[in-house]
Amino acid sequence: MIVVMKAGSTDLDIENVRKRIEGHGLQVHLSQGAERTVIGVVGHIHSGLQPEMELMPGVAEVVRISKPFKLATREFKVGETIVELDGVTIGGEDPVMIAGPCAVETEEQVMATAEVVKAQGAKILRGGAFKPRTSPYSFRGLGVQGLKILAAAGQEYDMPVVTEVVTPEDVGMVASYADMLQIGTRNAQNFNLLDAVGKVDKPVLLKRGFSSSYEEWLLAAEYVLSGGNSQVILCERGIRTFEPYTRFTVDLAAVPVIKKLSHLPIIVDPSHSTGSWDLVTPISLAAIAAGAHGIIVDVHPDPATAKCDGAQALSFENFCTLSTQMRAVAEAISRATAATS
Amino acid sequence: MIVVMKAGSTDLDIENVRKRIEGHGLQVHLSQGAERTVIGVVGHIHSGLQPEMELMPGVAEVVRISKPFKLATREFKVGETIVELDGVTIGGEDPVMIAGPCAVETEEQVMATAEVVKAQGAKILRGGAFKPRTSPYSFRGLGVQGLKILAAAGQEYDMPVVTEVVTPEDVGMVASYADMLQIGTRNAQNFNLLDAVGKVDKPVLLKRGFSSSYEEWLLAAEYVLSGGNSQVILCERGIRTFEPYTRFTVDLAAVPVIKKLSHLPIIVDPSHSTGSWDLVTPISLAAIAAGAHGIIVDVHPDPATAKCDGAQALSFENFCTLSTQMRAVAEAISRATAATS
Amino acid sequence: MIVVMKAGSTDLDIENVRKRIEGHGLQVHLSQGAERTVIGVVGHIHSGLQPEMELMPGVAEVVRISKPFKLATREFKVGETIVELDGVTIGGEDPVMIAGPCAVETEEQVMATAEVVKAQGAKILRGGAFKPRTSPYSFRGLGVQGLKILAAAGQEYDMPVVTEVVTPEDVGMVASYADMLQIGTRNAQNFNLLDAVGKVDKPVLLKRGFSSSYEEWLLAAEYVLSGGNSQVILCERGIRTFEPYTRFTVDLAAVPVIKKLSHLPIIVDPSHSTGSWDLVTPISLAAIAAGAHGIIVDVHPDPATAKCDGAQALSFENFCTLSTQMRAVAEAISRATAATS
Amino acid sequence: MIVVMKAGSTDLDIENVRKRIEGHGLQVHLSQGAERTVIGVVGHIHSGLQPEMELMPGVAEVVRISKPFKLATREFKVGETIVELDGVTIGGEDPVMIAGPCAVETEEQVMATAEVVKAQGAKILRGGAFKPRTSPYSFRGLGVQGLKILAAAGQEYDMPVVTEVVTPEDVGMVASYADMLQIGTRNAQNFNLLDAVGKVDKPVLLKRGFSSSYEEWLLAAEYVLSGGNSQVILCERGIRTFEPYTRFTVDLAAVPVIKKLSHLPIIVDPSHSTGSWDLVTPISLAAIAAGAHGIIVDVHPDPATAKCDGAQALSFENFCTLSTQMRAVAEAISRATAATS
Repeated sequence: MIVVMKAGSTDLDIENVRKRIEGHGLQVHLSQGAERTVIGVVGHIHSGLQPEMELMPGVAEVVRISKPFKLATREFKVGETIVELDGVTIGGEDPVMIAGPCAVETEEQVMATAEVVKAQGAKILRGGAFKPRTSPYSFRGLGVQGLKILAAAGQEYDMPVVTEVVTPEDVGMVASYADMLQIGTRNAQNFNLLDAVGKVDKPVLLKRGFSSSYEEWLLAAEYVLSGGNSQVILCERGIRTFEPYTRFTVDLAAVPVIKKLSHLPIIVDPSHSTGSWDLVTPISLAAIAAGAHGIIVDVHPDPATAKCDGAQALSFENFCTLSTQMRAVAEAISRATAATS
Repeated sequence: MIVVMKAGSTDLDIENVRKRIEGHGLQVHLSQGAERTVIGVVGHIHSGLQPEMELMPGVAEVVRISKPFKLATREFKVGETIVELDGVTIGGEDPVMIAGPCAVETEEQVMATAEVVKAQGAKILRGGAFKPRTSPYSFRGLGVQGLKILAAAGQEYDMPVVTEVVTPEDVGMVASYADMLQIGTRNAQNFNLLDAVGKVDKPVLLKRGFSSSYEEWLLAAEYVLSGGNSQVILCERGIRTFEPYTRFTVDLAAVPVIKKLSHLPIIVDPSHSTGSWDLVTPISLAAIAAGAHGIIVDVHPDPATAKCDGAQALSFENFCTLSTQMRAVAEAISRATAATS
Repeated sequence: MIVVMKAGSTDLDIENVRKRIEGHGLQVHLSQGAERTVIGVVGHIHSGLQPEMELMPGVAEVVRISKPFKLATREFKVGETIVELDGVTIGGEDPVMIAGPCAVETEEQVMATAEVVKAQGAKILRGGAFKPRTSPYSFRGLGVQGLKILAAAGQEYDMPVVTEVVTPEDVGMVASYADMLQIGTRNAQNFNLLDAVGKVDKPVLLKRGFSSSYEEWLLAAEYVLSGGNSQVILCERGIRTFEPYTRFTVDLAAVPVIKKLSHLPIIVDPSHSTGSWDLVTPISLAAIAAGAHGIIVDVHPDPATAKCDGAQALSFENFCTLSTQMRAVAEAISRATAATS
Repeated sequence: MIVVMKAGSTDLDIENVRKRIEGHGLQVHLSQGAERTVIGVVGHIHSGLQPEMELMPGVAEVVRISKPFKLATREFKVGETIVELDGVTIGGEDPVMIAGPCAVETEEQVMATAEVVKAQGAKILRGGAFKPRTSPYSFRGLGVQGLKILAAAGQEYDMPVVTEVVTPEDVGMVASYADMLQIGTRNAQNFNLLDAVGKVDKPVLLKRGFSSSYEEWLLAAEYVLSGGNSQVILCERGIRTFEPYTRFTVDLAAVPVIKKLSHLPIIVDPSHSTGSWDLVTPISLAAIAAGAHGIIVDVHPDPATAKCDGAQALSFENFCTLSTQMRAVAEAISRATAATS
């Protein structure tokens, strides 16, 4: 931490800051410039020290110089975290496709979708049983019945399944049906829920809050990691901006930045980020080209009648196009990277 | 709802859209312009109709023309909602001051603060026992012990108390200590929590999500209202923007806009929105001038040693200045409004 | 400037950074912590040094610790800048009302408006002759003819006039008609235009870019000040956010923050920031309560037929209400401040 | 345009709206629902009609249903606009690489860069001579001397050159040296400048304003097109969001959206959007995968000593890696698209 003193701060101000810091058992390094004095603070710094310093007379600014997250950083762990679900790995060389309906509606719908996405190379089946909805008057999912349908489809087509959990008390129950637990964007700072999934023995798919900075997102992961669960996959799903044309603005720079900062795998959700089925394929390809470890997409037998977010779901036909193109881009990236490294 | 057809849509496209709408038991009004056809839809419209229409051939755009919230609107209720807690009213003529520490730390701290804020005219005591924190390594509050301290201070100084609840299973327990339940900005779309506070018999202070639009915020209120709890107070607490100097950007236009749209009271939090104690007084005065029904501010006996958000807390001395100035502005507004209406 | 080295940086990395800094004639202060080394840089720092350091091996981060603007800061100038136009002062105790039509349309329109706003206490007349419009198909103003009408109205009603200039080559010509030159939000980073108004002998009303940070806004002012023109008034006019209900989000925290950072006067535009006439009065009152040195509002004899932004213009009647209420708030603030200081 | 009446509007309100619309020579289509009346307006609608209607008694909302841009839309022109500069085409099948230094510093620097980027497959040389800078104290470019150096390098290596023009009066002069004129992000709504480049016979590279919506960006293009210059290339270069880690947030969904709305070519600037050289390659590949017609990147012989934006410039070595990988992705996309269409 660096404490920058005001141009007109007095010797007494500086002395008081020095004493306060040393009183916390920390070391002080003074750097007196022509215009202003800068005080470096060395040692294990308590989170309350920054506001404390900011309020002292003569202090202009307090600058933090180390990141607030630890277990999620590359400095903490050498190499990559590779998450495994029933033989499917996320975080390695090959990008993974996770696909399925936004919401579980009927057994027929889920079975039909599972059959197609499996045949096209998807490795994990998605489907929502508990749906967070902006309006209380919208369809909120089938609940436990939905979990049963999803689990049955996973078994039938030999695919691990991922589904969202929305409240701490449901975590154990949802984990008994699902192979991976999803934390949605609106719960990205629901800290009790993050605590709860930090204590189960199932991987967690952690969506970025639609207004979370990278740092807040990694701190959300830190909740899960510090709870004891090291199997976290990050998912970029678009952030809120001023642009009204797309539902959110997908931030693909997140992919290389997160890979630089953290050892955790990162995937992209092109469906919820754009909100339009015809943007899903280009954004999926772009995500893979940017280095994402996979994508998670909405697929529906009949998007026009979907109970939830039909405008962004791919039809079976469109999903086939996506999977073919995605394989081609993934291979090109893999070959090109090999050739230039 | 209005369905706008593409410039090049065919008669068949239009016919299909018409049939689909009528198939849902709705009425169709066709308006054929020189350039394009517009189809009005009349009747009770199901939430899935919009995406369904958007996906039909020939459709350019679907425009919603009625608001998705109902119970929160002025069209639903004539007059103002006035919330009452032990004789204190929020939503009437006089703006209310809610004050106290961000986090409950010790009995001495809360008692000392309660004494001062009560003497200066605050009507309700605030204090956090369960603190949502961005980092898992920050102080997360005293929990039940904190609730007891807060309730005792409320009793001692004869002030109703408000405190945050962060997870559905705690709602009953927190309600047994508190006179009003606060939903924090990070839980503004925690729908299970909103459901839970919709079922208790205590007023709810609903903070705006820091990335919630007015519409999403009113829909969050709609969750509480539709659960059966009509005592909701809205609280503007700043939104996330690109400006890094303040912690959030306080949106004071929310005050007159919400008063136009809804019958619910609206107050402003100048502490969390700005993040700096020296901005709290000007923003409080501005909030009152804009028509807010009150403010909620952080006050601490010694901001420099606060365990949470000390940089934004007012000292006792600064709180006295605020309360004096706020009274003056409130009276001026009240007199001026009377004179011009 | 502070250079933070990576956790794993070598002695050689540190030595190289030290040499590079000293090679620029600057002094180095080393602070070696248990985890990482931090290097303070003292002396007059060239703007290219930060990226240069960021690219050196072993460097984790480079933190700037002094502000990039100079002439606009309180550190540069003691006291307040008070701008004077023909006996009207902006930046002193009394908040100033600037009012008039968004666009000059006819002589009758401007004369009628000037008469009313003058009678109601406005001190400066506004009116646009060159209008920046998002669409090339919108009304772009009367040009020189508009300037003549505005100047004539100013003379008739003895009010200084302010109008926008949109391109460097027009600066001299516009300055020959106007008492103050306005730089609009879309030209807030039109640096050639800022250079040009920096060389004239007329005050400049500098609107905040709708996506400018405080720092960028003050740097825009710095262009004018460093060009030799010290008469700059800043104008908050709303920033772009995700909220669609208002045209922009008015950022009233800008008022106390700018007053803390800079000696320049700051006013608020409640018309363009909100885009709705019925939000203009509450936001004007809030601006004054927050400490603004004035407001600039759109007024029109018949808002419904205005050629530009009619939805945000006040009718004469509504302007009278505003001016009455504003006086009351200004007096209350003035008395309350006196009582508590 | 659709006028939605309030729930409680009277027959007189509706009659008045009808008369006002018909008074403008437009046709009215009434649609009376159980809850509210909706009025469709048919005919050529003047831009001032919307605010006029919004201010009438009984009107709840006015909804625009046709886009405000015309010449830029796919409805106006069938097929794609392909821009040609000396035999180089932009907008066709093959994505184009534009590369060179951010700012022209010396002849040696530009010549060395041109040689390398040409050898690696870049088709157009970029280089800034007039640099818009946030601070008046930063390097603002070599001006005419810079143009001469750039033109000489273009001639030497047989590459068309693109450079920025920042003020209307320079347009003719800059066009005498450059093959394509760039409008920078800070001038995206400098309408006089857009007018000026609309009148020259050189292609225009139009960067998106960092806070421009797609609609505002296409309206900026509309200025150039309606001035008579049909050779416009759009360039996504990142938008301003709350995320501080990258300089801007690159919005790659802009690529497929703009291709859907407009016939104009669209390229991506991965350098200015991210601000970090190590994000340039992944974002370039992602842009191509999303369907961009090309990229424009900063390359510098020695990024650490660049006078402008060195942190984002690629070294020659890194540019070689980029060009190899980009070719691989472009081929994969091309093959995959062919196979699935």
